[in-house]
Amino acid sequence: MHNTVKHNSESLIVNLTCSRCGKSYDADRKQTVCTSCQGTLFARYDLERAKSIVSKEDFLRRETTMWRYREFLPVIRTSNIVSLGEGFTPIVAAPKLANQIGLESLLVKDDGLIPTGSFKARGQSAAISRAKELGIKSVALASAGNAGVAAAAYSARASIDCNVFMPKDAPISAKKQCAQFGAKLHLIDGLINDCASKVVEGKDEFGWFELSTLKEPYRVEGKKMMGYEIAEQFGWTLPDAIIYPTGGGTGLVGMWKAFDELEALGWLSKNERPMMISVQASGCAPVVKAFQEHKNSIERPFENASTIASGLRVPFPFASDQILKVILESKGVAISVSDQEIIEAMRNFARSEGMLVCPEAAATLAALPKLSEQKTIDRKDTILLYNTGSGLNYLELIA
Amino acid sequence: MHNTVKHNSESLIVNLTCSRCGKSYDADRKQTVCTSCQGTLFARYDLERAKSIVSKEDFLRRETTMWRYREFLPVIRTSNIVSLGEGFTPIVAAPKLANQIGLESLLVKDDGLIPTGSFKARGQSAAISRAKELGIKSVALASAGNAGVAAAAYSARASIDCNVFMPKDAPISAKKQCAQFGAKLHLIDGLINDCASKVVEGKDEFGWFELSTLKEPYRVEGKKMMGYEIAEQFGWTLPDAIIYPTGGGTGLVGMWKAFDELEALGWLSKNERPMMISVQASGCAPVVKAFQEHKNSIERPFENASTIASGLRVPFPFASDQILKVILESKGVAISVSDQEIIEAMRNFARSEGMLVCPEAAATLAALPKLSEQKTIDRKDTILLYNTGSGLNYLELIA
Repeated sequence: MHNTVKHNSESLIVNLTCSRCGKSYDADRKQTVCTSCQGTLFARYDLERAKSIVSKEDFLRRETTMWRYREFLPVIRTSNIVSLGEGFTPIVAAPKLANQIGLESLLVKDDGLIPTGSFKARGQSAAISRAKELGIKSVALASAGNAGVAAAAYSARASIDCNVFMPKDAPISAKKQCAQFGAKLHLIDGLINDCASKVVEGKDEFGWFELSTLKEPYRVEGKKMMGYEIAEQFGWTLPDAIIYPTGGGTGLVGMWKAFDELEALGWLSKNERPMMISVQASGCAPVVKAFQEHKNSIERPFENASTIASGLRVPFPFASDQILKVILESKGVAISVSDQEIIEAMRNFARSEGMLVCPEAAATLAALPKLSEQKTIDRKDTILLYNTGSGLNYLELIA
Repeated sequence: MHNTVKHNSESLIVNLTCSRCGKSYDADRKQTVCTSCQGTLFARYDLERAKSIVSKEDFLRRETTMWRYREFLPVIRTSNIVSLGEGFTPIVAAPKLANQIGLESLLVKDDGLIPTGSFKARGQSAAISRAKELGIKSVALASAGNAGVAAAAYSARASIDCNVFMPKDAPISAKKQCAQFGAKLHLIDGLINDCASKVVEGKDEFGWFELSTLKEPYRVEGKKMMGYEIAEQFGWTLPDAIIYPTGGGTGLVGMWKAFDELEALGWLSKNERPMMISVQASGCAPVVKAFQEHKNSIERPFENASTIASGLRVPFPFASDQILKVILESKGVAISVSDQEIIEAMRNFARSEGMLVCPEAAATLAALPKLSEQKTIDRKDTILLYNTGSGLNYLELIA
């Protein structure tokens, strides 16, 4: 009757499969990483069956959230869906910024317009829905800020106990929101990897289910929907390049999984794949460093990690092998920008286009002149910047 | 190709007509209020012609913003549309809050998920688009905060000079955002009505076009789209009651105009009209006072106006005759709640449903037990609360 989530569940999930060793796991039970090799588990769907039960046209009549793609999400029973209306965020043109840089077509996918104010909403909606479905009563995660806020919000909605471990210098807005949602906030004197250690230390004693990204199999399924949305919004084609700010990297991995699935479904042709370009802050650029050194994974934490873009302050992302694989397969690159460039790009976004973006998204804009200069992108390319969140969470960065 | 606004313009605007004396004005020229009687001017559309050129089905394939209803918006040339992806915000269920109050169906229209973080976006998108279309180079408005932010954002996008007059105790986030968007911010030692006086004083000298609500004819056209969206999202029916926080009141007036048009189009039947319930803060409740005293308009400013809900701090709304008319015609009521109740309702929204709403929306929740007790609403009614903005703009209200 209205666009509140209300539908028969039709998830086509089959199992969970390890990304490293290929071992498969029953999706009806609680799972974190592969018990054999500690690899990330990915949900697999019956895409052949999908072809006979759903078409691209069907989506037009569905809710304008990520749950319009419910066959390709892992929730079995509709009543377990924990939704705040997340996803199907607009794609907005940035003609003045394009002109400044000499590009013909610059677009912005705007996850400022999503519950909890950041792109973390999709992943947490999927993860908390599955936690509810599997009877989990208590969760814990390490977060630079936004993921903790999203976990706190969806946990509140699902009546699940939520423990958020955050660096003590995380943005004040994140701390306030976690508390307002009734989460237990643990402030740690360290970086996000130190927070992750605290989660691991306490999870057995306190019975927490660990929600940290890519150690839990369903956040990436929510993130994947960024790729489905972009494909549908582009009329089942894709841009030439997606410029994505990379902290934990789940978004890059999720979008690439979406494109795999959409190709298998026959909804995208193989030659549609965009370059996936990873942007980091020069003060915390482990992916850029590994990319430049032609490594297949990140071997140790980036030293003295520091940047005002708190979402990029991830010195040792868990699934670095997956991130680097996506960049290489897509013929993309990894590139870094300075904090000063980020601050200037935030202002430029606001003054030129009327968009108050987060510093992580500002980093993607700051990278464009460099990418253009080094001929990674061409002036005729259709370029999509990913704005991962509202600037409202970062007012302390605005004078 | 994608859902960026891109279409042939098909506005069916005919003229502007005075709501008091009925005098009509050419919509191709700059207009503010009626030059004869100072009444609010409303845009009129060729609704008969609409029946032959657009159907409800057509909207399914259009962008998920308010511009999907472009025939009923005033912009003539597509290239003049100034859009950030505003509108078609989700309607989210609030089952735990419903249960607390003893209601069967409680829903929230969530304008936390809109550019600039508040419901002011639709009105400013329409107004600034028309300002661009009519060649206006400089605008000014009085604002409690959110409208100024939205005007600043859309003006930046349109390269229009923007002057925002705000009480000096407006939320700090609003001040920062206006500055970031490059607007000229004028902080006034007084209330919003004092700010409005400053706009009137300076407009001739400085050549500002006055954007203050209901003195400018197009903001209400954007607001009107709240009504179109609700109707489509409810499957071309309407809820039994819409509970709406009322400051300047343009939203109430705009939604009612939408329902008039949708009835004339034959897309809604007459018996669909909801009760329109206006909620104010007890510290600034001019509409409630006039309603209780059976007045047709507000005669003087509410004395010693004070409330933490800055959007409700409007002691003397310009078009009070229109607001009261809507409440009476809809068989609605006006009701007030205390600041303490607002703070508690903000927390309840967050803890129960995972929603960080603005204090104005929290006021609508706080009003529900009273409305239920006085039998204005029935437990079987479908009730829609209007969340007019993100709580991110009000973090100072969260401990």
